[in-house]
Amino acid sequence: MKELDVVTFGETMVLFTSELMLPLEYNDRFYKQIGGAESNVAIGLRRLGHSVGWFSKLGNDPFGRYIHKFIRGEGVDTSRCIYTDEAPTGIFFKEKYSATNLKVYYYRKNSAASLLSPDDLDEDYIASAKILHLTGITPALSPTCRETVFKAIEIAKKNEVKIVFDPNIRLKLWDKEKAKSVLLEIAKEADIILPGLDEGEMLSGRKIPEEIADFFGKEKTVIIKIGEKGAYYQSKNESGYVEGFPVSQIVDPVGAGDGFAAGVISGILRNESIYSAVKRGNAVGAMAVGMSGDVEGLPRSEELEEFIKGVISLQDVKR
Amino acid sequence: MKELDVVTFGETMVLFTSELMLPLEYNDRFYKQIGGAESNVAIGLRRLGHSVGWFSKLGNDPFGRYIHKFIRGEGVDTSRCIYTDEAPTGIFFKEKYSATNLKVYYYRKNSAASLLSPDDLDEDYIASAKILHLTGITPALSPTCRETVFKAIEIAKKNEVKIVFDPNIRLKLWDKEKAKSVLLEIAKEADIILPGLDEGEMLSGRKIPEEIADFFGKEKTVIIKIGEKGAYYQSKNESGYVEGFPVSQIVDPVGAGDGFAAGVISGILRNESIYSAVKRGNAVGAMAVGMSGDVEGLPRSEELEEFIKGVISLQDVKR
Amino acid sequence: MKELDVVTFGETMVLFTSELMLPLEYNDRFYKQIGGAESNVAIGLRRLGHSVGWFSKLGNDPFGRYIHKFIRGEGVDTSRCIYTDEAPTGIFFKEKYSATNLKVYYYRKNSAASLLSPDDLDEDYIASAKILHLTGITPALSPTCRETVFKAIEIAKKNEVKIVFDPNIRLKLWDKEKAKSVLLEIAKEADIILPGLDEGEMLSGRKIPEEIADFFGKEKTVIIKIGEKGAYYQSKNESGYVEGFPVSQIVDPVGAGDGFAAGVISGILRNESIYSAVKRGNAVGAMAVGMSGDVEGLPRSEELEEFIKGVISLQDVKR
Amino acid sequence: MKELDVVTFGETMVLFTSELMLPLEYNDRFYKQIGGAESNVAIGLRRLGHSVGWFSKLGNDPFGRYIHKFIRGEGVDTSRCIYTDEAPTGIFFKEKYSATNLKVYYYRKNSAASLLSPDDLDEDYIASAKILHLTGITPALSPTCRETVFKAIEIAKKNEVKIVFDPNIRLKLWDKEKAKSVLLEIAKEADIILPGLDEGEMLSGRKIPEEIADFFGKEKTVIIKIGEKGAYYQSKNESGYVEGFPVSQIVDPVGAGDGFAAGVISGILRNESIYSAVKRGNAVGAMAVGMSGDVEGLPRSEELEEFIKGVISLQDVKR
Amino acid sequence: MKELDVVTFGETMVLFTSELMLPLEYNDRFYKQIGGAESNVAIGLRRLGHSVGWFSKLGNDPFGRYIHKFIRGEGVDTSRCIYTDEAPTGIFFKEKYSATNLKVYYYRKNSAASLLSPDDLDEDYIASAKILHLTGITPALSPTCRETVFKAIEIAKKNEVKIVFDPNIRLKLWDKEKAKSVLLEIAKEADIILPGLDEGEMLSGRKIPEEIADFFGKEKTVIIKIGEKGAYYQSKNESGYVEGFPVSQIVDPVGAGDGFAAGVISGILRNESIYSAVKRGNAVGAMAVGMSGDVEGLPRSEELEEFIKGVISLQDVKR
Amino acid sequence: MKELDVVTFGETMVLFTSELMLPLEYNDRFYKQIGGAESNVAIGLRRLGHSVGWFSKLGNDPFGRYIHKFIRGEGVDTSRCIYTDEAPTGIFFKEKYSATNLKVYYYRKNSAASLLSPDDLDEDYIASAKILHLTGITPALSPTCRETVFKAIEIAKKNEVKIVFDPNIRLKLWDKEKAKSVLLEIAKEADIILPGLDEGEMLSGRKIPEEIADFFGKEKTVIIKIGEKGAYYQSKNESGYVEGFPVSQIVDPVGAGDGFAAGVISGILRNESIYSAVKRGNAVGAMAVGMSGDVEGLPRSEELEEFIKGVISLQDVKR
Repeated sequence: MKELDVVTFGETMVLFTSELMLPLEYNDRFYKQIGGAESNVAIGLRRLGHSVGWFSKLGNDPFGRYIHKFIRGEGVDTSRCIYTDEAPTGIFFKEKYSATNLKVYYYRKNSAASLLSPDDLDEDYIASAKILHLTGITPALSPTCRETVFKAIEIAKKNEVKIVFDPNIRLKLWDKEKAKSVLLEIAKEADIILPGLDEGEMLSGRKIPEEIADFFGKEKTVIIKIGEKGAYYQSKNESGYVEGFPVSQIVDPVGAGDGFAAGVISGILRNESIYSAVKRGNAVGAMAVGMSGDVEGLPRSEELEEFIKGVISLQDVKR
Repeated sequence: MKELDVVTFGETMVLFTSELMLPLEYNDRFYKQIGGAESNVAIGLRRLGHSVGWFSKLGNDPFGRYIHKFIRGEGVDTSRCIYTDEAPTGIFFKEKYSATNLKVYYYRKNSAASLLSPDDLDEDYIASAKILHLTGITPALSPTCRETVFKAIEIAKKNEVKIVFDPNIRLKLWDKEKAKSVLLEIAKEADIILPGLDEGEMLSGRKIPEEIADFFGKEKTVIIKIGEKGAYYQSKNESGYVEGFPVSQIVDPVGAGDGFAAGVISGILRNESIYSAVKRGNAVGAMAVGMSGDVEGLPRSEELEEFIKGVISLQDVKR
Repeated sequence: MKELDVVTFGETMVLFTSELMLPLEYNDRFYKQIGGAESNVAIGLRRLGHSVGWFSKLGNDPFGRYIHKFIRGEGVDTSRCIYTDEAPTGIFFKEKYSATNLKVYYYRKNSAASLLSPDDLDEDYIASAKILHLTGITPALSPTCRETVFKAIEIAKKNEVKIVFDPNIRLKLWDKEKAKSVLLEIAKEADIILPGLDEGEMLSGRKIPEEIADFFGKEKTVIIKIGEKGAYYQSKNESGYVEGFPVSQIVDPVGAGDGFAAGVISGILRNESIYSAVKRGNAVGAMAVGMSGDVEGLPRSEELEEFIKGVISLQDVKR
Repeated sequence: MKELDVVTFGETMVLFTSELMLPLEYNDRFYKQIGGAESNVAIGLRRLGHSVGWFSKLGNDPFGRYIHKFIRGEGVDTSRCIYTDEAPTGIFFKEKYSATNLKVYYYRKNSAASLLSPDDLDEDYIASAKILHLTGITPALSPTCRETVFKAIEIAKKNEVKIVFDPNIRLKLWDKEKAKSVLLEIAKEADIILPGLDEGEMLSGRKIPEEIADFFGKEKTVIIKIGEKGAYYQSKNESGYVEGFPVSQIVDPVGAGDGFAAGVISGILRNESIYSAVKRGNAVGAMAVGMSGDVEGLPRSEELEEFIKGVISLQDVKR
Repeated sequence: MKELDVVTFGETMVLFTSELMLPLEYNDRFYKQIGGAESNVAIGLRRLGHSVGWFSKLGNDPFGRYIHKFIRGEGVDTSRCIYTDEAPTGIFFKEKYSATNLKVYYYRKNSAASLLSPDDLDEDYIASAKILHLTGITPALSPTCRETVFKAIEIAKKNEVKIVFDPNIRLKLWDKEKAKSVLLEIAKEADIILPGLDEGEMLSGRKIPEEIADFFGKEKTVIIKIGEKGAYYQSKNESGYVEGFPVSQIVDPVGAGDGFAAGVISGILRNESIYSAVKRGNAVGAMAVGMSGDVEGLPRSEELEEFIKGVISLQDVKR
Repeated sequence: MKELDVVTFGETMVLFTSELMLPLEYNDRFYKQIGGAESNVAIGLRRLGHSVGWFSKLGNDPFGRYIHKFIRGEGVDTSRCIYTDEAPTGIFFKEKYSATNLKVYYYRKNSAASLLSPDDLDEDYIASAKILHLTGITPALSPTCRETVFKAIEIAKKNEVKIVFDPNIRLKLWDKEKAKSVLLEIAKEADIILPGLDEGEMLSGRKIPEEIADFFGKEKTVIIKIGEKGAYYQSKNESGYVEGFPVSQIVDPVGAGDGFAAGVISGILRNESIYSAVKRGNAVGAMAVGMSGDVEGLPRSEELEEFIKGVISLQDVKR
């Protein structure tokens, strides 16, 4: 029997957030958070009750330890994390112009995580999971990272681990053509693909959700995020649109996609229908944007149920 | 002649407010405020020019001293406050998800204030007031607190002190049936009752403001708060609806009811018509929600007059 | 050839901004910014690539040094700043009730800047500029400040330096009649006048932009700000309305007028048509209100171009 | 019978303290405290159980209200405070280079308090006190303040109110010759004089404590502070040295003199011997310097007793 | 084979630390840490490379989650933690007068942890450890906590788990006679006892380390902490004094004893001589006081080795 | 005639300083400062009244702009600064264990400054200076930086610009042998060399100041810093020891060497004797360590004079 529900890996960085809404050069107050698509998904899944493993290569420095402690503290298995003295932990800064007008500045080039290489993979660990979650960020980090992703895919295939792939295209990290070719290669191996509409368009050259889904192939499950409108899904047997949950106030737009992925994967692990899993994804995404930070707003199981049932809204004062 | 306009008593706690809009477990910055329905009303009345006494049992600790100094600093008479070494001052924490999505966490069980007992009452002091203000929170704190409330009512009755009662139902503190029976008992003795619509419904079992008011009896003045829509009032001679003031931005919804009570009582002390007193209540309530904190936004006399006249709005930039 | 594009002078103060949205008496966290109409314009122009000189009389104290370093740091020439031991640097406090409900409290009476006198002017310096920028604040500060303004006008006239005048009426600083008579005297000497609609009305006694512009005389360029609606301009050869840019969220309404002035002057220095210069002014003003602080939101050249072209909006998340 | 133990008056300002130990121009974090020699003494006496009145002229602004609330909150009678719209409340800034290397910057010139005038005095109020406490700061603030001091002396003399005078020479506020002549005039009227050794030297032209005391006259009580060494006292019947309490760590040297005055006056009100009163003064002074802020470290009665008995030290960890 | 090196349990609370060195009533800035003797020891041991389990009963609230995440984040096994809705997580406040003059204020009465009861123990879990670590705080929290301790002892005895007992006498929590009788009962069952000199004196009625050790019995290992002087130890075969490490600056005296316990237990787990284990304890204790917070200064393995060898000191600047 | 007194160049980074004395992984509050040996010296010299130019390659990002504005704000000529989109501005973090126990963590590898190359040098600019100041940090940053240093030396030689060289050995940046060989090559070209005693020892293989100085050659001026003891100097005509100034409290040990360099160079520019210049260096260094931050404590001219004369100490309270 599989010991873990999901394994994922990739770069998580320390995020220094401006306390004041001022350009970074004028702001003089920062606090620490963490940011990383894969650990966001891992934490999101853990909060919903699943067993999850996440790993990365961390700098042997206070920021590496902070990330490790943070994610382990959330209950995610971090036993395969590796520390290196070769490079520092990646960090980034968030500049806030207004609640929804943000810029980020990365210090991640040649970071510890970019040194991840196929040798860092523990085959048994990946084999022990039901699902391997991958994003399109990791292959963009370095050639060895790219090889690591393909090695992980190979392990998954060999061990009947389902692959969920979220393209997460970051054109700051690599050029468009390179990105497209690598991501398509990964998509080919994936069982479930979770592109945003614009990502689907970039990868497939098509504009309509149905056509994009077709592009990836009918034997796959393709779920296309269409912003606040919800999502379109298409699998072997089902297809359709799932309306999004209304969001009364976007406190922090970052992390919605990762929340969506966590919700969808959770639904799948619970053997829900794709429709229901996508609805779950929509709900987690909607809850994530109601809170500052990538993971702080990810709901716990009971909160998610109440939100889906409409018992709680995001505007309640509880006294 | 009466020396004080109003006497009130009850628990005031130190409030630790999150500086960042993050779940409490992630927020690492707190600042101090105070919170307590009765002291909110006392401070609100004092700002409007009335003489007010407030008292409580405070822990003999820095938080008890902080509360005492804060309220005394506002000009409220605190000479009947009692310090105890038996229990600490109650405190609570405010978690901010967004500007209007808040949760509070209490550390008030067995607090100093819950030790208030009938022996702590100074009969002459209560007798010296025109109005005794009571809330439904105090009897929920402990059996001795409940006895203290009824002892205070007895004293008021004996000394021709009018009783204003604000139910302030807190189901976190006691169960519904117990609450209902005790609050109805207090309401029976009160001259003026200030329920919210839902409170009125819970206590009377009726849904229409007019019927709720009738339930409490025609010889009383009953003023029912209907949220942003304003209020319904009914007294021996008058009855009607009073529209609320438009609130452009709710900065902090907590404290509106206490501001309303302060406004109404102030109108009564000024011998205004009930209509006019309720309008005053609406105005103070509207101003209170435009500012963070329970008491920080309570207006001074001249500010209230200007607001009622429409001279100042809550959106002015004064330069 | 002119060495500087623009010279301006006037009082810049240190601004202590409340971190919390609480009345000043309850807020316990302050941070430093600077505020001064003329230095706002100077910094705005410098960011747009022009060479600018600004000067004032500063207190020989840490706040004077802070202002000096801040403005010099922005690349504005501050070589004519003068330090005095006679008076402290002016300061002020900003109280925030909500994002757009602000009050300011000045400590500027008898400040160092109010000691500016005609002898402090360096004729060659003013003569070296294409444009002299003046506001109606300086003559309100003290009699010697008033004389300094008129002396500067005299120098400008003698040396073919164009005068741009922004009335900036501050009735906290002088009475209306005095203000009107002095400002009209300055307006008479100005080449370009930039009143707000209410200022134009106060100075001219007329209500319609066209009539206000006529009042100042057909040989001048008059540009009247009409809030979010944009502006009306009238010069010898051109006249018309220029629509404003939509502002999705006003983060800080202060500084819009100074941004407008910087944009207009920049357009003029670039030999654009008045229409185009006014549009530039509208754009800078719109960008300035999207950021907390007087100068923090003033755009750099490339940002302004992108904003005007609509390439960037104020609601983008850049990741 | 006298209703109040002590009445005092003078300027109290809002103090903005740097959070970081950096020159003020680099520090970007400030918090609010209050500072004023007379209110320090008033609060010190109140904590020791005496009834005290303090008053001043305050600006009708948030800072005036803050001061009023702070001091009233401490239990000092502030009923004679006057608000004015004519001038703002005085403020000052504290620059911290290290724990004991401080500089202050005043914004007090022409402040509200400097407008205090003889007409602001309530003769009955002063007459109702056993002791009138005066400092040499008030007469330095303005001519009307000076007249107010002498008017108060006149009232005290007429009503058998003892005068305690602390020279508190501030040469930033007036020149030495003027200071000397005015302060000597006040000293002549005082019953108890509390100079520092250097102040005594400046006023008397003598260097030895005994000689300085003689200079002021044998019929007076003169107590000369000699820093950490303690104090010398001389009254009609007693004289001698009182050793100071050891101070393990000076956290904030400001406020020691005011604490000393509070302790001495407290001893006198308790009818202790001069020796004992001076010892009390030494103890309060020693405790005051162990805490940041002028009044925050002033002890409550029971703390002072324990400190004098040596039961508690300033280095205890209480868990 | 034993799966865990050490198991421990007890109350950990959230600590709110004053940012400013001011009495708590004047301080307005707080940050979060955690505090709990048993989790301090657990974290200390984990940093030194041992496998450790810690558990408690936590409130089902943000503070319970914070504690859980913090300790799990450190790599301690927290799988036996229990959440309750019956009571809130205990918290406390730290007041800083100066670096070493501290006071704490508890909100722990009837806390979640005080509800721990024998039924909460997992026998297999305790049985799986080499060492059970107990402190004298837990039995002081409530009768059920006391029973839990004795039940744990019973389990340990049955399963050949060594018991290490640190008396940690807290007279704020229970009275001296009760404390003495219960703690002696526990001591009787313990294999290793770690009293401070004053604790040893209170429990044994003797004053000399050698005699105190004898009192507990020759078949036990008794290690008596003698402050900065180091420690005395006595076991079946060895006895002697071990000098302390010099501490150049005590940043935070709290947590030294827990660090000592962690060091000693670590030495024992490494099969070092008692002398060497005590030296290890001295070193960890010395390092712990050089850092603010209970656990923040606990060294990692390599840091401890370097400190013991004298390679690093606490005064280095590493650049 | 030379237009500038000194030109220097090298990497300046943004420094994020922990507000709390906690390991970086636990600290959640950061503020911005700047750090860079060459800009420290430039600012130090500017404060002492000299004209100085500093340049670097900066990232085209908010941190690059912050550095640029900070240094330009101090009055240093920054006209030769170059912005690049190729790499981000270097940053670092300061971890504070106690006032003097610090660690730094760099994010400077492949930073913008490391891209400095010989082509970035403006020959006329360097030629216009009396002195070129170089440190041993720049050649350690990258091969192109190393070439830039030697190109600058060549330009200086050609244009009769004196070279002052401060080895500033950073073994975190390159290995010892490489460092030694490059630094000796630079030293050979320098007119004035300012090693610390340990640096001198590493470069020369000798231990005695006199012998180290001899090693570099009698025709050079060699000044060897011996910590708090002062310095040894040797030039063609003079040699001797100069005692250091007593430092009552080291607030921040970093920046002392740069302050020393600024003082020495200032003395030389003023044509003082070497003895006197070294004394000036000692004084600036002593003042620098009395303040947190690299440049914040660097004295202005008049402050330095007073400190040297002993008029002001670092322990004064100025009120």
